[in-house]
Amino acid sequence: MKNIPIILMGCGGVGRQLLHHIVSCRTLHANKGIHLRVVGIFDSKSFLVVPDVSSMEFNDTFLMNICQIKSNGLSLQTCVESGKSEAFSSPESTKKLTDIAARLAFTLVDCSASSETIGTITQAVNLGCCVVLANKKPLTSSMEEFDNLFLQPRRIRHESTVGAGLPIIASLNRILSSGDTIYRIIGSLSGTLGYVMSEVEDGKPFSEVVKAAQALGYTEPDPRDDLSGMDVARKGLILARLLGHRMDMSSIKIESLYPDKMRPNTMSLKDFLANGLQLLDNDIEERIKKASSNGNVLRYVCVIENSRCNVGIEELPKESALGRLRGSDNVVEIYNRCYKEQPLVIQGAGAGNDTTAAGVLADILDLQDLFT
Amino acid sequence: MKNIPIILMGCGGVGRQLLHHIVSCRTLHANKGIHLRVVGIFDSKSFLVVPDVSSMEFNDTFLMNICQIKSNGLSLQTCVESGKSEAFSSPESTKKLTDIAARLAFTLVDCSASSETIGTITQAVNLGCCVVLANKKPLTSSMEEFDNLFLQPRRIRHESTVGAGLPIIASLNRILSSGDTIYRIIGSLSGTLGYVMSEVEDGKPFSEVVKAAQALGYTEPDPRDDLSGMDVARKGLILARLLGHRMDMSSIKIESLYPDKMRPNTMSLKDFLANGLQLLDNDIEERIKKASSNGNVLRYVCVIENSRCNVGIEELPKESALGRLRGSDNVVEIYNRCYKEQPLVIQGAGAGNDTTAAGVLADILDLQDLFT
Repeated sequence: MKNIPIILMGCGGVGRQLLHHIVSCRTLHANKGIHLRVVGIFDSKSFLVVPDVSSMEFNDTFLMNICQIKSNGLSLQTCVESGKSEAFSSPESTKKLTDIAARLAFTLVDCSASSETIGTITQAVNLGCCVVLANKKPLTSSMEEFDNLFLQPRRIRHESTVGAGLPIIASLNRILSSGDTIYRIIGSLSGTLGYVMSEVEDGKPFSEVVKAAQALGYTEPDPRDDLSGMDVARKGLILARLLGHRMDMSSIKIESLYPDKMRPNTMSLKDFLANGLQLLDNDIEERIKKASSNGNVLRYVCVIENSRCNVGIEELPKESALGRLRGSDNVVEIYNRCYKEQPLVIQGAGAGNDTTAAGVLADILDLQDLFT
Repeated sequence: MKNIPIILMGCGGVGRQLLHHIVSCRTLHANKGIHLRVVGIFDSKSFLVVPDVSSMEFNDTFLMNICQIKSNGLSLQTCVESGKSEAFSSPESTKKLTDIAARLAFTLVDCSASSETIGTITQAVNLGCCVVLANKKPLTSSMEEFDNLFLQPRRIRHESTVGAGLPIIASLNRILSSGDTIYRIIGSLSGTLGYVMSEVEDGKPFSEVVKAAQALGYTEPDPRDDLSGMDVARKGLILARLLGHRMDMSSIKIESLYPDKMRPNTMSLKDFLANGLQLLDNDIEERIKKASSNGNVLRYVCVIENSRCNVGIEELPKESALGRLRGSDNVVEIYNRCYKEQPLVIQGAGAGNDTTAAGVLADILDLQDLFT
């Protein structure tokens, strides 16, 4: 049985779902000769770790208990049991993790949403550990930090940073390793904006669609977090860097779906919903009409082409995979030497804790050959 | 630099394209710390191998020379150069391969179309080698032979056996290793039949579409090789076994698009094209009309569901990914826990030497962590 030590960062929805998946896959993984041994868990405040990482692990009852405690909003600190677990707070927690990494190769799984983890995970990789990321932030910081993280690229997987569990990164890596040139990637990478664009196409006013999406829980609490395009831009940057483009967030042209004067620091959420949003309806309606008269539709997409990455509304053929998109699925079209006229298309749900955690778990298993 | 010895079986279009890709990717792979060292090549008659597999390799000029010689229809035997290569014929060739496998871990790449390779590749895997298959035959023989081959599943990749280079197998393996249950796979896995079904949908008679497809080189020389559904069934069996279903070709219900009385051993190709084909037009036309009256379209698909695999014409919703398929792309819809209502869809060209060889090369690179 191959024994793979796991340390998890982040106990939000994705992290907890991952622990559930690990526990429910015990038999399946045992049949493949794999045992995932969870030896440590970080939340934003503490690092809970078994006293002896080389031989002990958190058992399944304990892991489910942690999920319960965290979903009740309590701290990991409350889980400490003498002889079974120890808790460390920052900055000791980071030092403890590095100490472990120097002695034991483990897989560090970043399911947090923190921009503070990059230093720790870079150290871990360079000490011989593997890293799996659902957290986009470490991949969207400076090029220098990115380069330092990717000194050992085979030890890193990050499928769930784009399109949740959709096999986008894995497929792009396959294309790249076969020496094929990728000319163009165009993708609808926000389920929320995919839903909004297909609803407005049906003639509904933009403001009403956004308010309905908010009511359905499809958007962030402040829908401007989606409408700004920043989340799509982060995913675009991750894909662009995967293709070898050396760029930062500042190199991406991002079209926000609301003007500067309606920014959160200028206009309250209440005011935006009550008065701001509807001022945007006419412009979107006119753009849809113009596109329609060309036989096209509008999609909010990320386009990577000619070393550039643009994020915003594009007019696309109705009959393309992106043009036919309805609802909240993510769609990515990849144009390369082998898929030149007709793209390689990957489509499916691109959000949700279950599929995100499933992508993380597949990444963990994918790294198994690096463990003895 | 990690040095991966390669032995290639099969010098047809895919094998030769693979050699071209390997040579053209030298710099790319070197930048990733990989060198693919081709030490032996089989054609149907001979095994050409370097005198010392642990230190020598066929250089790029020699590889391109082999491609030239094979595309001119000559034998590998004509490439023997004293001190640089030796040739063995069957049965010594198989013994030589096994001798090498016992001393050196290499990647054996089966780009042949032979049903005779399974014994050799099974021995190689069990001696510690890795195997990459574009050849479907070893995966569609008896369950017992399949089990023996897959005693070490991590050492085997076979992306290009279904949908050429499309990332179908890799994506299914990711889903399976995350413990997700796959309820249903439905796929249009023949570019030829995909083209035929979308053309007849436009109102063209079946017989004319098949004859046009033959004239365009889309079909096998005898189009009945496509219309029988056997090739789709082989791909279906590979997918079904991947999901863990223990079945043989005989367990698959296959709908042939021509009746028994028009089989190649009963009716000549000339007679089939001149007289047989047009007798099939009415039936297809009526089925299309019936489907259309339900708002559906007909597709020739493989369906894997409830431990069964069926291959034939199905009535599918016009607005599904399969229903919207036009032309010769392959499309696979995967329904599982994470993609339950809306499937995970993978679409793109599913045939061609370039994309098939690209899939093989990606598999070879994917196995790199098993080499030291």
